[in-house]
Amino acid sequence: MNPHIALTTGEPGGVGPDLCLALAKERLPCRLTVIGDPDLLSTRAKHLGIHVELHHVSDLHTTAPHQPGSLCIFATGKAPEPFPGRLSTLNAPYVLGTLKQGAHACLDGLVDALVTPPVHKGIINDAGFPFTGHTEFFADLTGGSPVMLLATEGLKVALATTHLPLSKVSDAIQFDSLAQTIQCLHAELIQRFHIPQPRILVCGLNPHAGENGHIGTEELEIIAPCIEQMKQKGIHAFGPIPADTAFTPPSLAEADVILAMYHDQGLPVLKHKGFGRAVNITLGLPIIRTSVDHGTALDLAGTGNADPGSLLMAVNMAIEMCCQRTPQ
Amino acid sequence: MNPHIALTTGEPGGVGPDLCLALAKERLPCRLTVIGDPDLLSTRAKHLGIHVELHHVSDLHTTAPHQPGSLCIFATGKAPEPFPGRLSTLNAPYVLGTLKQGAHACLDGLVDALVTPPVHKGIINDAGFPFTGHTEFFADLTGGSPVMLLATEGLKVALATTHLPLSKVSDAIQFDSLAQTIQCLHAELIQRFHIPQPRILVCGLNPHAGENGHIGTEELEIIAPCIEQMKQKGIHAFGPIPADTAFTPPSLAEADVILAMYHDQGLPVLKHKGFGRAVNITLGLPIIRTSVDHGTALDLAGTGNADPGSLLMAVNMAIEMCCQRTPQ
Repeated sequence: MNPHIALTTGEPGGVGPDLCLALAKERLPCRLTVIGDPDLLSTRAKHLGIHVELHHVSDLHTTAPHQPGSLCIFATGKAPEPFPGRLSTLNAPYVLGTLKQGAHACLDGLVDALVTPPVHKGIINDAGFPFTGHTEFFADLTGGSPVMLLATEGLKVALATTHLPLSKVSDAIQFDSLAQTIQCLHAELIQRFHIPQPRILVCGLNPHAGENGHIGTEELEIIAPCIEQMKQKGIHAFGPIPADTAFTPPSLAEADVILAMYHDQGLPVLKHKGFGRAVNITLGLPIIRTSVDHGTALDLAGTGNADPGSLLMAVNMAIEMCCQRTPQ
Repeated sequence: MNPHIALTTGEPGGVGPDLCLALAKERLPCRLTVIGDPDLLSTRAKHLGIHVELHHVSDLHTTAPHQPGSLCIFATGKAPEPFPGRLSTLNAPYVLGTLKQGAHACLDGLVDALVTPPVHKGIINDAGFPFTGHTEFFADLTGGSPVMLLATEGLKVALATTHLPLSKVSDAIQFDSLAQTIQCLHAELIQRFHIPQPRILVCGLNPHAGENGHIGTEELEIIAPCIEQMKQKGIHAFGPIPADTAFTPPSLAEADVILAMYHDQGLPVLKHKGFGRAVNITLGLPIIRTSVDHGTALDLAGTGNADPGSLLMAVNMAIEMCCQRTPQ
């Protein structure tokens, strides 16, 4: 199988275009099509002083296997302010347009997976578009119930809640959504990662997992009963485990994935351990979607110093997931 | 200088007594006095099949320099249920009594520092004593404003809030207390750790440090203005930095300490990186106090398998801090 990967350009002022161009030189066992503005890429290449051959494709069926030194591009929209290091609200419709196009290409079966460089949530919001993250955006667009999974070598971290203010996290931990997240993780780790009986370590919400109700009651009222129900369904979920125990080496050895209750409970360890070598995967959608583990890095855009390591891992992860989905 | 370290026994059902006994065999450049129940130690030693010579001291001035194979003990209270692996509310007054005795010995200048094995917050609360942690207990007792600092090789993490339910964290992030924490950190890192101009990285509260107000406003309203005021006082504080950036290697290289806004934002990384080799230090008190980085580990009590590594580090850290306090 030679999967077809769609790649957006991300925030035009950030490192997204640089990373797409840097990726061109790699040997990749796939067909790869950039969904975006050809002028953005050619201008950035000129700015960086590098040469990448751009092949325009007007029909996604015609994308050929990837050749190092070139990129296939499906022209989508126009970035009106394509300047490295500078944010502009004027670019927001372009950015969202590429995400929509990429997702629809997946839904329509024209490509097998979508890989996304970083966007800038703040500037998209400033432009008047409510946007809390790729994960939530693709969920709205494709109708799935997403689970955000970050992976690096030796560690997979999933999140029960994603981009919420901390003050809203407790209310967002609900039995039904937590059960759905655990069931999604269980199913997707089997289907996408070929782990026959995934061991899901569920963190507590509060310090020390609430210490038996003395530091918060969500563990007793919601998390523990939910884990119990999951066990009855034959899912190997266990916990709630205090987060500062969950990530110790003996604990990690007992789990295939750590389910953190919120963003900053799980991701600091992941980024500490796998800095520049981590991939963001959206599970629970009808499409395969991976992304980088870093932000727009405006200060690195246009400098030639942006590291494509995470984007390369995201593409390779997407390829791997496509191949596991369809037996060869 | 030959500092005098007081050591409590921790939760009688946990590994505390085992660790005290295991510590006895070490070479330690200090005087060391256990504050606790001599019968608890002798019974546990018998259970473990090890021999430790117990020297009873009735006057703390008479404790001699530590000799491997022996322990000085200042008899304090009686643990009525001293059984390994079993919690009992009956032990709570004993546990709290040893903490009080140890703290008062420090305040009275009879010892130079206090080191504490783990206690079990839940069982102390079940016994009817409000108790949220050693740190808060010693603050009440000694009148200080504590800052909890965890340290392992290459990483120091301080907490702006400690053992609060997650739902209460946002309200607890206030300008004045945050300013006090940063100033305490600044002063203590200079005094206790001889860092001339400590670089204090301050985390945001929300995911992505609030992404410019789009995911929570505490950064804009409280944290950033507080950092600004600290800078005007000549303190090298900076941020707010997203927690999942703060702990990446390039970020850690720029900071002497990471100030996390809450328990599970900072401690999972610390325990991941420094498992079994981390120390808990209470700054901002009129006494020097260190502790282990782990819990009571009831399942290991009485088995001989408890690892005294963290307690040994806590004692050595206390010795180091005593020696830095008083020029030799």
